[in-house]
Parts: sequence; C-alpha cells; structure tokens
Amino acid sequence: MLAPERILRLEDDRVVFLDQRKLPLEEVDVECRTALEVAEAIRTMVVRGAPAIGIAGAYGFALAAARGEDLVAADRVLRSSRPTAVNLAWALDEMRTDPSREHAEAIHRAEVLRCRQMSAHAAALLAPGTRALTHCNAGGLATGGYGSAVGALLSAWDLGLLERVWVDETRPLLQGARLTAWELETAGIPHAVIADSAAASLMAAGEVDVIFTGADRIAANGDTANKIGTYGLAVSARYHDVPFYIVAPSSTVDHATATGAGIPIEERDPAEVTARFAARNPAFDVTPAELITAVVTEHGVHEAPYRESLARAVVAA
Amino acid sequence: MLAPERILRLEDDRVVFLDQRKLPLEEVDVECRTALEVAEAIRTMVVRGAPAIGIAGAYGFALAAARGEDLVAADRVLRSSRPTAVNLAWALDEMRTDPSREHAEAIHRAEVLRCRQMSAHAAALLAPGTRALTHCNAGGLATGGYGSAVGALLSAWDLGLLERVWVDETRPLLQGARLTAWELETAGIPHAVIADSAAASLMAAGEVDVIFTGADRIAANGDTANKIGTYGLAVSARYHDVPFYIVAPSSTVDHATATGAGIPIEERDPAEVTARFAARNPAFDVTPAELITAVVTEHGVHEAPYRESLARAVVAA
Repeated sequence: MLAPERILRLEDDRVVFLDQRKLPLEEVDVECRTALEVAEAIRTMVVRGAPAIGIAGAYGFALAAARGEDLVAADRVLRSSRPTAVNLAWALDEMRTDPSREHAEAIHRAEVLRCRQMSAHAAALLAPGTRALTHCNAGGLATGGYGSAVGALLSAWDLGLLERVWVDETRPLLQGARLTAWELETAGIPHAVIADSAAASLMAAGEVDVIFTGADRIAANGDTANKIGTYGLAVSARYHDVPFYIVAPSSTVDHATATGAGIPIEERDPAEVTARFAARNPAFDVTPAELITAVVTEHGVHEAPYRESLARAVVAA
Repeated sequence: MLAPERILRLEDDRVVFLDQRKLPLEEVDVECRTALEVAEAIRTMVVRGAPAIGIAGAYGFALAAARGEDLVAADRVLRSSRPTAVNLAWALDEMRTDPSREHAEAIHRAEVLRCRQMSAHAAALLAPGTRALTHCNAGGLATGGYGSAVGALLSAWDLGLLERVWVDETRPLLQGARLTAWELETAGIPHAVIADSAAASLMAAGEVDVIFTGADRIAANGDTANKIGTYGLAVSARYHDVPFYIVAPSSTVDHATATGAGIPIEERDPAEVTARFAARNPAFDVTPAELITAVVTEHGVHEAPYRESLARAVVAA
C-alpha cells in the first residue's frame, strides 16, 4: 500500500505529488511551489480523487500562507480548479480557520483515518466469497491513503471475505485500468480489468455480488456525483438486484446542496475521448439516491431516507 | 458513402478487403489468396460486422472453389474463424449449393439491398428531430455497403427526421469512434462520440430519443447477441423508456437457436483491454428479447412475440 506521504505531501517550500497521469508506467513526482501551481496540478489531474484534491487544496493553501501569498486569491484559484468534488471547498473552508502546515497535515491524516473507518463499515456488509465490482479509482491515490471504495476491498480481503474484483477500465482516462488495477495488484487481490460496457453482462451472468464506488459529491438527499459511468452501473445494478454502495468520507457530503440537480458537472476536453472527431466528455454523472443501496462513511452505513441518515455524516471537529 | 466493392470484393485470384483495423487513419487494402487467408482476415478483424463476414466467407469459399482447394476444408476453416455471428454459417451454407464467384457477388448485392430495405423500415419509426444513439459499427463497413443500424440513420437523415447521433466509442476496439464516426462524417450527419459509460446519463438528461444497434445473431425468440455493451444499453433504455431497436438482415436470424443461451459468445484476447493487467474481454453480450422494442429486418418491423414475428424473417430465395 502506498504511504500517504508518497501520494502527496508538503515539504519546505513545495507540495510534492506522485503524478497520477503517468502511473503505473512511471513513478514521477511533480513539485508545486505556489497555490497557482497546485491549482494547475489539480486541474490537469496530476492529483485526482475528491478527498485527495481536498488535501491538495489544503496543502496549497498552507503553502500560500507560508509564502505570504494573497490568501483570498489563493483560495479562489484553488477552489475553482475543478468544480464537481465538494472536498476542495470543504478543505479550503477548514484551512481558513488555521492556514498552518500542521493543520493541512492533520486534515490529510484525518482523511486517511476516515478511510480506515468507512472501509471497516463497508467490509462488514459482505459475505465470504464476494465478487465485487468497482469503477474509476477510489483507492489510496484518490484519498491520500488507503482508499474509500478500494479501501473497503482491502479491508474485505484482509477479513477473507473477498474472492475477486472486476475493475471497470473507466474511459476516457482509464483510472480503473491504470490506478485501481495497480493498487489491487500491489495488495495481491485477484482482479480483472473489463471494458466499462461489460459490467452489465457480468451482472446478468451472476458474477457480481456487490458494487462499491467512491463519490465526488453527495447531496443532502443522497444523490451522488461520481465518475461518468457510475449512474449506468447503478441502473444495471438495480435491474439485476446487485447491491450498490457509495463509500466516501463525510467531507464528501454537501449538506448545503439539496439534490443532485444542484451539483455542477464538469465537462472536460472532448480530445480526451477522441482527438479526431466531434465528441462530448462529461466527466461525472449523478446517481439518484433511489438507486443507491446505502452510503458508507466513517460514521457507518447510511440508508434511506438519506436526508435524515446523512445528517450525522459530518466531519468530526 | 463507401461503394460496396471498396469494402470487400473478389478479384481474379484474390479477395480484397479495406483493412478496418487501420481506419480512419489509413485506407489500406489487404489481399487474400486462399480460404485460409480469408479466414485469418476475418479472425483478426481486417473485416468485421456480421453481414460483412458472411460476405467475406462467401468470397473466400468462391476463391477456394476457383482454385480447386478442398472445399470441405475451406468451409471448416472459414466457418470457425469467428463464433458469434451466424451470417458466416448462413453464407457458407448458401455457397455449398453453388460455389461460383457470381453467387458470392449475388449474396453481397442482396445483403446491401436488404440494408436499404430495413433502413427504410427503421427510419419510418422516427419522428422529426430525433436524437439517436448507436453502439459499435453497424454501418456500410459492417454489412458490405449502406449499413443496418447506421443505414437506418442515413435513411432518417435523408428524410429530414434526424437531428444528431450519439456514437458510443465502443471499447475495446473503438469501432464507434473509428468507423461509425467516420461514416457519419462522410455523410455529413451531426454526431458526437461519447465514452460508452456516458450513454446512461445522456438518457437520464432526456437527450436520447431512440437507440439503433445491429446484431451478430438473433435467436428464434428475439434474444440478440451483439457487441459487448449492447445489453447494458438496453437495460438503461428500458429504465429511461427509450425505444431500443435491433436493425439487422434476416441472414442474422438463427431460427435453429431457440434462445440467447444457445449463442456462443466469443472471448477475445485480454490484451485488447489492457496489455499490462489481468483482464477479461467478452466481445459480445446477449440482450434478452424482453428488452428489445422491435427487431427490424428487410421484411419490416418484428415485434413481440418474436417467435412468431421472426418466423417470416427468412432470406428470400
């Protein structure tokens, strides 16, 4: 398992990221010396995954404070680097109360601890011999250590409950094929990468017992924005009676947004899909609460009605 | 639109294929001089698409006959080159009665004519302003000319009924992004390529009015094998009340196979998905008849109960 500080850390005068665009073929660091450079690393997906970009924002803000940058400008450039994940806004709100390096590191440690907690809660939902499916990468790389949905798989594996994992390759940027497969391989967990469009027929064949995904933003009613394709998985899961769980820290719950309709969906460069033809490239979709079996946070398993059950999904002071 | 003979043809001592693996970046011909070479071209997807590989099989058999090859061996090697599409077996059965070049060319011409007919039937199902979605390539390249599902789009466009087309890129081999987008561009039809996993959220947003796909084999009860991902699309279409049509010639209907459970599903090299990690790569899935709004052949629109309505979907003598 990747050490949290290997994924991202604050050094003397810089934030150091393991460049997630180049994994797994190359392990290269990217160093950022200003809030603007950190924002650019977030925008270009050197670092990605909702909790990890929240931590990156915290480190970027602490860096700006240490350098004596204009903190209003630093907050603005970091906050606007990507629109969908709410963790970035949450972490920056936190950092305003104390822009120190120690505070940013405490946020990082706390996110990893939450991952451990939610993973234990999620693994406890499984029976022995589980064949799980996951989409995109909600692993240590996405959360600053251990992982949310992939953390749940690691915990289930440790408990002897997991037989194998189907990994959606996750077009267009292949976070599943590149990052999740790499993390599962490192952990020694049997897995196979599949084309995203093969998931439904695996469910029809009875080869999927549960689906775990992470989240970029969970509205107060449980509607959940996550990587494009999550919604279609949830529709297929409902059709096949496969439980579909969101595993995410409470920093991903946006209590101020009532429903998924209020979540901004990033549209990325069509060239990520194809450089040659007209394309459309929504990076996220929203899965309505009605299709979600439960949301698992560090506080436990939240079931419908979510407006009530998620009320306790707040980040502990 | 590509001329049928540009896609594949029989010349004096060879079958000439436009190499579909290299499109749209390069237009390169592949020449095959024996039945074994034609079988290899089918296996390696120089030529693909159920009706087109049927025609390729017919040309390969005619070539073998003209060369004085052992026709039992030629039939066997061609018939076993790919397992899922029934058109190959159908065309070889046809060729046994008359292994001449003229017969193979007549089969080719008849398939293109069927495409024209089914496309008119399918286009007549649409209202003006239709935004259609298609998966994989069921265009002229797949049928030897004009196309089945893409043919329906061409006909709808000519009738002024089509507003735009969403093209599933169709992982792992990207037949949508490479071939369907190219054919639509050539025809001047507005379109955008999407990641396969984006289709469900486009349906949720009300941006898809109809789905047309081709077929590799239609069982007697209407269960339909087609490119992996078709099944998941059909599940999402049902959830969103989007009509889901199969457009295919009667040579694709396998009256001898009762249900989809009897259709062999090809598993291709996992390296097509990822060369680095363990992968699984089913090339097709089966969509149960229950999820199909109608099957459109050259005979017209066949609705449930399919065992009765498809009985008339036979290739005219």
